[in-house]
Amino acid sequence: MNPVSSQAPEAEPPHPGAALLQLRRVAIDTYRENVAYLHRDCDVYRAEGFQALSQVEVRANGKRILATLNVTSDPRIVQCNELGLSQDAFDQLGVERGHTASIQQAEAPVSIAALHRKIDGERLNREDFHAIVRDIAEHRYSKIELSAFVVATNRGELDREEVFFLTEAMIDSGRRVNWREPLVVDKHCIGGIPGNRTSMLVVPIVAAHGLVCPKTSSRAITSPAGTADTMEVLANVELPFDRLAEIVREHRACLAWGGTADLSPADDVLISVERPLSLDSPGQMVASILSKKIAAGSNHLVLDIPIGPTAKVRSMPEAQRLRRLFEYVARRLNLSLDVVITDGRQPIGNGVGPVLEARDVMRVLENHPLAPQDLRQKSLRLAGRLLECDPDIRGGDGYAIARDILDSGRALKKMMAIIEAQGGKAFDHEHPQLGALSFDVCAPQDGVVTGIDNLRIARIAQLAGAPKVQGAGVDLARKLGDQVRAGEPLYRVYASFQSDLEFARQATLKDSGYALGGPGDLPHVYVEF
Amino acid sequence: MNPVSSQAPEAEPPHPGAALLQLRRVAIDTYRENVAYLHRDCDVYRAEGFQALSQVEVRANGKRILATLNVTSDPRIVQCNELGLSQDAFDQLGVERGHTASIQQAEAPVSIAALHRKIDGERLNREDFHAIVRDIAEHRYSKIELSAFVVATNRGELDREEVFFLTEAMIDSGRRVNWREPLVVDKHCIGGIPGNRTSMLVVPIVAAHGLVCPKTSSRAITSPAGTADTMEVLANVELPFDRLAEIVREHRACLAWGGTADLSPADDVLISVERPLSLDSPGQMVASILSKKIAAGSNHLVLDIPIGPTAKVRSMPEAQRLRRLFEYVARRLNLSLDVVITDGRQPIGNGVGPVLEARDVMRVLENHPLAPQDLRQKSLRLAGRLLECDPDIRGGDGYAIARDILDSGRALKKMMAIIEAQGGKAFDHEHPQLGALSFDVCAPQDGVVTGIDNLRIARIAQLAGAPKVQGAGVDLARKLGDQVRAGEPLYRVYASFQSDLEFARQATLKDSGYALGGPGDLPHVYVEF
Repeated sequence: MNPVSSQAPEAEPPHPGAALLQLRRVAIDTYRENVAYLHRDCDVYRAEGFQALSQVEVRANGKRILATLNVTSDPRIVQCNELGLSQDAFDQLGVERGHTASIQQAEAPVSIAALHRKIDGERLNREDFHAIVRDIAEHRYSKIELSAFVVATNRGELDREEVFFLTEAMIDSGRRVNWREPLVVDKHCIGGIPGNRTSMLVVPIVAAHGLVCPKTSSRAITSPAGTADTMEVLANVELPFDRLAEIVREHRACLAWGGTADLSPADDVLISVERPLSLDSPGQMVASILSKKIAAGSNHLVLDIPIGPTAKVRSMPEAQRLRRLFEYVARRLNLSLDVVITDGRQPIGNGVGPVLEARDVMRVLENHPLAPQDLRQKSLRLAGRLLECDPDIRGGDGYAIARDILDSGRALKKMMAIIEAQGGKAFDHEHPQLGALSFDVCAPQDGVVTGIDNLRIARIAQLAGAPKVQGAGVDLARKLGDQVRAGEPLYRVYASFQSDLEFARQATLKDSGYALGGPGDLPHVYVEF
Repeated sequence: MNPVSSQAPEAEPPHPGAALLQLRRVAIDTYRENVAYLHRDCDVYRAEGFQALSQVEVRANGKRILATLNVTSDPRIVQCNELGLSQDAFDQLGVERGHTASIQQAEAPVSIAALHRKIDGERLNREDFHAIVRDIAEHRYSKIELSAFVVATNRGELDREEVFFLTEAMIDSGRRVNWREPLVVDKHCIGGIPGNRTSMLVVPIVAAHGLVCPKTSSRAITSPAGTADTMEVLANVELPFDRLAEIVREHRACLAWGGTADLSPADDVLISVERPLSLDSPGQMVASILSKKIAAGSNHLVLDIPIGPTAKVRSMPEAQRLRRLFEYVARRLNLSLDVVITDGRQPIGNGVGPVLEARDVMRVLENHPLAPQDLRQKSLRLAGRLLECDPDIRGGDGYAIARDILDSGRALKKMMAIIEAQGGKAFDHEHPQLGALSFDVCAPQDGVVTGIDNLRIARIAQLAGAPKVQGAGVDLARKLGDQVRAGEPLYRVYASFQSDLEFARQATLKDSGYALGGPGDLPHVYVEF
């Protein structure tokens, strides 16, 4: 379990001939963008000349970062002999306040020529992708350049070998874990379905069977909860990588946030522009998911592709194209991959938001009478497929074995062990700590629920405060096909702050996300597995 | 001369149900990006929930702006009951400190669906372009979204009718001037050639003949000087629009900065991402140039397209394609257009940088023995073409008439009148105020100058401080075809600050921008006009 680290960069001397400024941490969180603050009357650099250029390179302590320049005339932010850096930027240099630094106009990253060729529609080779991804991982691309890369490599612009090059380059941009185990399994969903917390059920089931499943997940960025956010309700998810490795050695599994492990760091940078653009093209999705999994040391993956009118994938031909692309790249990277196409017409489970989703997961593990059956069934099916990679299990037997592990309480026992190992928190799922404020959204007329908009429900939960406010979210009272009478609740919204509650209420008034109709209006079930 | 303004937007009430914060101007210049600063422990909005969403809408005083959210824990920047805004953002609301404001997570701009269709490669219609350009002009697009639009409409992605739609939408995004004159002429160069200050010669020549030529120019963004920067050495270029109109009425011409006139404001926003990306695709170039000219009220335009190995356009077929696109869109917009393809193998004139270029221009106007002949010849030819739009001038006679106007001193007299009207500044072109620091770049061996890299010379002048430091720049001692001996100067670099001088010196050591060879190595002259 010795991770192979990427090579350390050489120490950078100050810029030749450049004058030095005193560094200062400016208590502004600029959200993943490095910002440098220079006083307009700076002693040694004239702010105006620099400002027109916008990107500067800062060197201090043998390190080098790029930052966007902001000019200020407020000496409480920076004085004339100082260079201010936003929180993250300052922390990257690893120095104390007052340490000296030099700055210089940033030269364009070396790979910009390759980016321009891609913008012009050319095919790039392996070296091009490695150069681009290295510059991205080292934060040498501005948001504008990142956005250009994401658009230029969007839908149809990458052929499948280019997707392989991109994936490989992303793996090489960070650490690659070697678990020294013949079989390391993982499951992943391409996302877009609120409440879909199957990982928190699949992982304890397959680990109880004895498979190694070191699950690292992302936090939500624009969704109301990621697996890491939901797991955080129950346990600590930000563990040092060495501690994670210990837990996996002892329990065969973990359920942690992947952010501390430096796995495919270029992916995190790209996501910071893909999410605001709502771009999730097949090539980028494949490179993002497979690079993270391979960097995390998995060699067998079950991949969940949900289809539905408001899911990421909206038709079977589209799902099949995506499956083939995943399979091509996985094969080039020696990853064994099993794609499962699932029903993505509506949220999975009842709760949407960290605490509500943790409640649903624990109810399934405890075989609670209120456990959501769709979450249970889907998790059993995915766990079954994963179990079948065990050479001792016959194809088709996985589901029943998974069900036995769940029904017997072995999955719950494994989950409790993982939670305890990760520093478990008190959680009463009979009386979960939900937001103190709430309101119901009710049916305007009698009818059958014929549509639940995944995107709208996610947005409402998010406006209510999820995932940052753990107890905020949406609790669905009705699912597709349910009969409802006028005035009966469709769902309840929970929030902890009045302003959040109001934002969510305004959103439900505009569009509740529910459609009512007759029994014949139900959307087609795309898959039955 | 009554400008037709775009419709005023309706007053925006505060967000329904939202709590109010006190506005405060934060003395940080974020360079065309609105930034809102919220304290981490804000009384009414929790910073964390908002921050994940990044873009917020701020309403105050019946106005509405979008801003990127930064979170701070420093009460000297904002306190818990305050909302800080970066300088520009604050100024857009037109309120005093302490005015109340409400904020809300920004909804995606309406035209984002059309943007996504363009990213997916679809053709957009007139309404789509109008919706997108309106959102851009109203600053509703983030930098990331702007960048996505620029890349998705890049080379080959827009057909010529789409370029027309885009141009038309950009004209409609701002003010359109009507000069109430039958003939309003202008000249424009697509750019990329340092020192190419022909406008400051063409305008006084054609105005001396009596044509109306209200020239509004841009400032340099990544080049070492724009026409506005150079004119600013001689006179005030930031005049209120009404004053400009007066000057044009009296003198038939002006030479001013276009930024105060609200002409094609969407163009200014797009440029803020096109320049850092170095993207200047044919469609965007045509829309940018023609929208500005038509909004400024011109109905006859001479357009200069320079060709050369380091110019924007590098081959004759490319120049011809660009010419046809300009002509198609101009015809759809009833603009009479005369395209002139010129020699862009090297900088025009000797000086590169505001003061040096102003010196060259004044020397040409005064028929000074040191006047650069290439600048004189090119200006006469362009002025001649423009004069020929006068129905009283026969085709082919324009050049000689322009030369008479220049040689007789009438062009100088007109220029002095314009300078005086624009609040002329003292300028001694025999002893111009150049940067106090300088160094020479000399020939490493004997030879003939066979190449001068436009981009490299521009970069060196810019590193030396141009255009913000007016006296900084590069003064060329040798041009293409000149014989030079080892150790003789090729050019001199001027700067006012030691750090700038060092940056420029490092750049010349890496690559001086000059190539020496034999007389047979001169690049082909693409055009002879």
